[in-house]
Amino acid sequence: MATTHHPLDPLSAEEIEAAVAIVRETHQSVKFQIVSLHEPRKATMSKWLADRSHATKPPRVADVSVIAPGGNVGDGLVDLEKKQIVQWEWINGQQPIITVEELQRVEQVIRSDPNVIKQCEISGIPRDEMHKVYCDPWTIGYDERFGSNVRLQQALMYFRPHIDDCQYQYPLDFCPIYDSDKGEIIHIDIPQTRRPLRRETTINYYPADIEAKGGYRKDLKPLEITQPEGPSFKLNGREMEWQNWKFHIGFNYREGIVLNDIRYNDGGTIRPIFYRMSLVEMVVPYGNPERPHQRKHAFDLGEYGAGYMTNSLELGCDCKGCIRYLDAEFPTREGAIRRIKNAVCVHEIDGEVLFKHTDFRDDSGIVTRARKLVIQQIFTAANYEYAIQWIFHQDGTIQPEIKLTGILNTYSINPGEDTNGWGTEVYPGVNAHNHQHLFCLRINSSVDGPQNTVYMTDAVPSDEPVGSPMNPYGNAFYAKRTKLATAGQAITDYNGATVRTWDICNTNKMHPFSKKPASYKLPPPFCFSQLARLCRLTRSTRAADRDDQLWPAGRHVPQTSGETDVGLMEWIGDGSESIDNEDIVLWHTFGVVHFPSPEDFPIMPAEPMTLLLRPRNFFRNNPVMDVPPQRALTASQVLRKTNSGIGSSKL
Amino acid sequence: MATTHHPLDPLSAEEIEAAVAIVRETHQSVKFQIVSLHEPRKATMSKWLADRSHATKPPRVADVSVIAPGGNVGDGLVDLEKKQIVQWEWINGQQPIITVEELQRVEQVIRSDPNVIKQCEISGIPRDEMHKVYCDPWTIGYDERFGSNVRLQQALMYFRPHIDDCQYQYPLDFCPIYDSDKGEIIHIDIPQTRRPLRRETTINYYPADIEAKGGYRKDLKPLEITQPEGPSFKLNGREMEWQNWKFHIGFNYREGIVLNDIRYNDGGTIRPIFYRMSLVEMVVPYGNPERPHQRKHAFDLGEYGAGYMTNSLELGCDCKGCIRYLDAEFPTREGAIRRIKNAVCVHEIDGEVLFKHTDFRDDSGIVTRARKLVIQQIFTAANYEYAIQWIFHQDGTIQPEIKLTGILNTYSINPGEDTNGWGTEVYPGVNAHNHQHLFCLRINSSVDGPQNTVYMTDAVPSDEPVGSPMNPYGNAFYAKRTKLATAGQAITDYNGATVRTWDICNTNKMHPFSKKPASYKLPPPFCFSQLARLCRLTRSTRAADRDDQLWPAGRHVPQTSGETDVGLMEWIGDGSESIDNEDIVLWHTFGVVHFPSPEDFPIMPAEPMTLLLRPRNFFRNNPVMDVPPQRALTASQVLRKTNSGIGSSKL
Repeated sequence: MATTHHPLDPLSAEEIEAAVAIVRETHQSVKFQIVSLHEPRKATMSKWLADRSHATKPPRVADVSVIAPGGNVGDGLVDLEKKQIVQWEWINGQQPIITVEELQRVEQVIRSDPNVIKQCEISGIPRDEMHKVYCDPWTIGYDERFGSNVRLQQALMYFRPHIDDCQYQYPLDFCPIYDSDKGEIIHIDIPQTRRPLRRETTINYYPADIEAKGGYRKDLKPLEITQPEGPSFKLNGREMEWQNWKFHIGFNYREGIVLNDIRYNDGGTIRPIFYRMSLVEMVVPYGNPERPHQRKHAFDLGEYGAGYMTNSLELGCDCKGCIRYLDAEFPTREGAIRRIKNAVCVHEIDGEVLFKHTDFRDDSGIVTRARKLVIQQIFTAANYEYAIQWIFHQDGTIQPEIKLTGILNTYSINPGEDTNGWGTEVYPGVNAHNHQHLFCLRINSSVDGPQNTVYMTDAVPSDEPVGSPMNPYGNAFYAKRTKLATAGQAITDYNGATVRTWDICNTNKMHPFSKKPASYKLPPPFCFSQLARLCRLTRSTRAADRDDQLWPAGRHVPQTSGETDVGLMEWIGDGSESIDNEDIVLWHTFGVVHFPSPEDFPIMPAEPMTLLLRPRNFFRNNPVMDVPPQRALTASQVLRKTNSGIGSSKL
Repeated sequence: MATTHHPLDPLSAEEIEAAVAIVRETHQSVKFQIVSLHEPRKATMSKWLADRSHATKPPRVADVSVIAPGGNVGDGLVDLEKKQIVQWEWINGQQPIITVEELQRVEQVIRSDPNVIKQCEISGIPRDEMHKVYCDPWTIGYDERFGSNVRLQQALMYFRPHIDDCQYQYPLDFCPIYDSDKGEIIHIDIPQTRRPLRRETTINYYPADIEAKGGYRKDLKPLEITQPEGPSFKLNGREMEWQNWKFHIGFNYREGIVLNDIRYNDGGTIRPIFYRMSLVEMVVPYGNPERPHQRKHAFDLGEYGAGYMTNSLELGCDCKGCIRYLDAEFPTREGAIRRIKNAVCVHEIDGEVLFKHTDFRDDSGIVTRARKLVIQQIFTAANYEYAIQWIFHQDGTIQPEIKLTGILNTYSINPGEDTNGWGTEVYPGVNAHNHQHLFCLRINSSVDGPQNTVYMTDAVPSDEPVGSPMNPYGNAFYAKRTKLATAGQAITDYNGATVRTWDICNTNKMHPFSKKPASYKLPPPFCFSQLARLCRLTRSTRAADRDDQLWPAGRHVPQTSGETDVGLMEWIGDGSESIDNEDIVLWHTFGVVHFPSPEDFPIMPAEPMTLLLRPRNFFRNNPVMDVPPQRALTASQVLRKTNSGIGSSKL
């Protein structure tokens, strides 16, 4: 069955079922946490990409993680062609990713747990309202009292007076700890200061609530986006061709969208740019030091999965225009199939002005309009929503854009209580804690080939003193380039004072005119400062000839602490490894600081953040001059009073 | 005639002509550099805005600047109702803004100047090719050899083998100085190292050139944006109403678009936010220290004017959808009218997801799509184009967005010559120098009233040591707020390490829930570091009850140097003035560093930069919950299996 696949396509439902069946032959009663494509080794894959008709097609292998009764974790690989387990290991003290099923189970347990019921009564919720008690059952994160041998979730507690109410306006003050294996509550964290449920006036965002408060605004006229001839892209399976770009759209339980083998057709020459690019982790550290809020430190990708949590998208809701969708298929814990229809959407958008110039002498000039291609998914991490867009520009720019929306994580606050600066009372009784949203972008670059080097570029004034012969007026400034020659040197922070950028260069391909290396530049906006000191993400690059170095916080993230012997810190090691002119990976952490405000409640208007990866010294010159202009009029045409027609081209 | 005007409307053609006629009665042979609205004093204007039917309507007054034969500069005010000059002053040593007519005149003079012809011959251009010699005639900027009593322009020299060729690929190495009053070349700056014209292969961006190189791409399908019921805004004269916003769109020769009296209808309460907002200056300092490149330090707004240089926009070219346009009218130097049709365009765009949340328990949830309103102009500063967009969001956010396109300023380079790091050889013989684009956003705020205060907010870790009882895990962080109490204290720089923001607050209006002041936040992206040390812009705030404190580099910018006794530095003075709970102005400088690359040549794909001014603790809660959703399905509806219809609303 695998013969029609691209080797990087996600496992199909049939393949997942086949892997499950093979595992079940040996391990009958396990729960499946992961059954996902074990990506082909780069060495094999590169050969196949270079010559699809002759090279050996990489085999289809499933990456599997299971939990056996009693909590033992099994990690293995299943060769789907050989139909056998080719690697298997039982591991201790690690907890695989939490599935949506696990999230959904805790709520039933807390409602009938006598100690939770008692705490609810203390909070002012009588026994007969227990069906109105809800929880967001996060992984426990890390809690030194429990370690990581027992699979635990912390239940962030809420109340809904009515099933349709937004629960985040009614937080409860205690936090039950759930043992996933036993299926029961093993402990409840109770704060010293009690904060009983405050039944303040309800605020909701559903139609009935809006109608009750005066109804919807009526002054918004329709805006329609159509493509009567269809989209400009070709999607062959999961291989995309659009405006000189060609790449493969992968998708997995953890990272969600993975872009592979990104190439650009530069006037007939197919030039590789990135071998693999994705968001590999995100962390939302909260800044309230009071126990147990330090555990609110969600590694949303490693702990829950941007794939597992992804939304099913709908035309005209999440996207507009001529949309193509890709579905996603995942295993249930029992080994059946969970299908997410329309997990990824692909569509074009108008890109406003691509380039323009008007000659002030005679108003001759050109204006050309841009088009953009968007590959999008939206996932829900309990309260928050993240809309992840990978935007391709015609000019070679790739723009990862993330929009934050959804609902603030909230905690209770007593009347008159001080937030102590760790949060904002966004609604009476609702304390939304300070937090950051930090994302880690992983780029295995192949800018004009697999051997790349990263330079850090700082914009600095001339080293020559102002007034000296070499800098008489003090206006001199230049791009100070620092080669990051080793993995250790590459652990670098943002510098706002020098508008620091990082350039992924191919020093073997110097531009014929500029004599500078072909490169892609990582821009400065949204570079972050790590405020919560227990963050486990770090920015750096390192050689990556080991195919499994994908996730900076390690393979199994729940219940880990700031270990330095897993993930990125392990791979960096003593930092001595050369990353100069090697097959490199760049890990770029960026994000925003969020001090909540009432405007974010009860649901948050989307806040965007965006990065522009731009080609520099890569193309011989502007690569989009052949995009048909909307208006083009030369000086001689103006002279000849030919104000229309000749030489102008309409799209 | 003025009775139908909004007092902040630009002068009409009739008013300009009337002002010219009144001035001419006394000063016959002057050239008009400026005839523009002298904006009503804020004290008078505020009264009229508060009660249009009863308050006195502010008078129509023209702000005039002229140059008399011999170079004397006359500055005055003309009362258009009294039909008389009410203020007049002859000034020395200052040069008013350069007009487009002045820019266009120099080229004719250089072509017949014997010394220029001689230099052209040295460069390899025979006498009979002088008609192919072009120049961009910038103001001289500042040159200590000439001072500011004589009105001068520097001619940046280029060659066009053919009239339709892009001249910036053929720069010449010398720089004639033009005396505007005499109408002749008074000096030529000749570099020590000569760089003769290099007639390299032509690269152009016009259809004939593209066709000759293989033609246009044919794989871009149409994308149409329509609004069958028209736009959602109401434009009454120049007063805009859209989605609870109300504001006036002004336009002048210098700043281009000026937004005034920006208010938001918050559930029936009309709340002021900004009294006046505009880009008041921009400067492009170049980083090459070799004389005379230090003079490339263009103050594009003060020296040339974003209004004077603005483009006439065309439907489907510069904008797409349902567009409304506003024209601009300016005086010619002779006092006639120069009309720019479609100087400003106004249109809505789709804004993607406004907010969304999905409950992971049952897929109940809501998704609401956003609309944005764009007020746009595009101006040409010799080689560069700037697309200025003022984007209004439904949620109270205002987003100034600037796209840079057009053509790099270029200088010549010999074969094998080193750029010394001050530029990039973007094409053979073409050296594009390092530069910055720095913009100054001026905000006279009125956040919930005229008395505002600015706080600087730094995101910092807790002051308590990690491991101490108050910060046991080290995750604590908070928003450290520093009141900028005086104009001196308000001179602050960006701090990337603390993701610094500036909050414009009304400390008299505390939010009922958060107990924090109503505010608008200025975000961190694109905050700049001032690399070229002679920049005259500074970031700061100060009390502004003086209506003429508009332009940070002073009223007349050409041929000024880094004087501290004009403009912003003058107004800040000793810095002691209180700006705590006063009528304040915030001057925010932001921008990008541009190290050119060949992709930018011969015409630059647009590079965007954007700011989001967001309301914080201003609205009681999310202000856009009444925007009709695309999909809304409550938990109880899911339970009742009502998957369509009830409770969901389609736009």
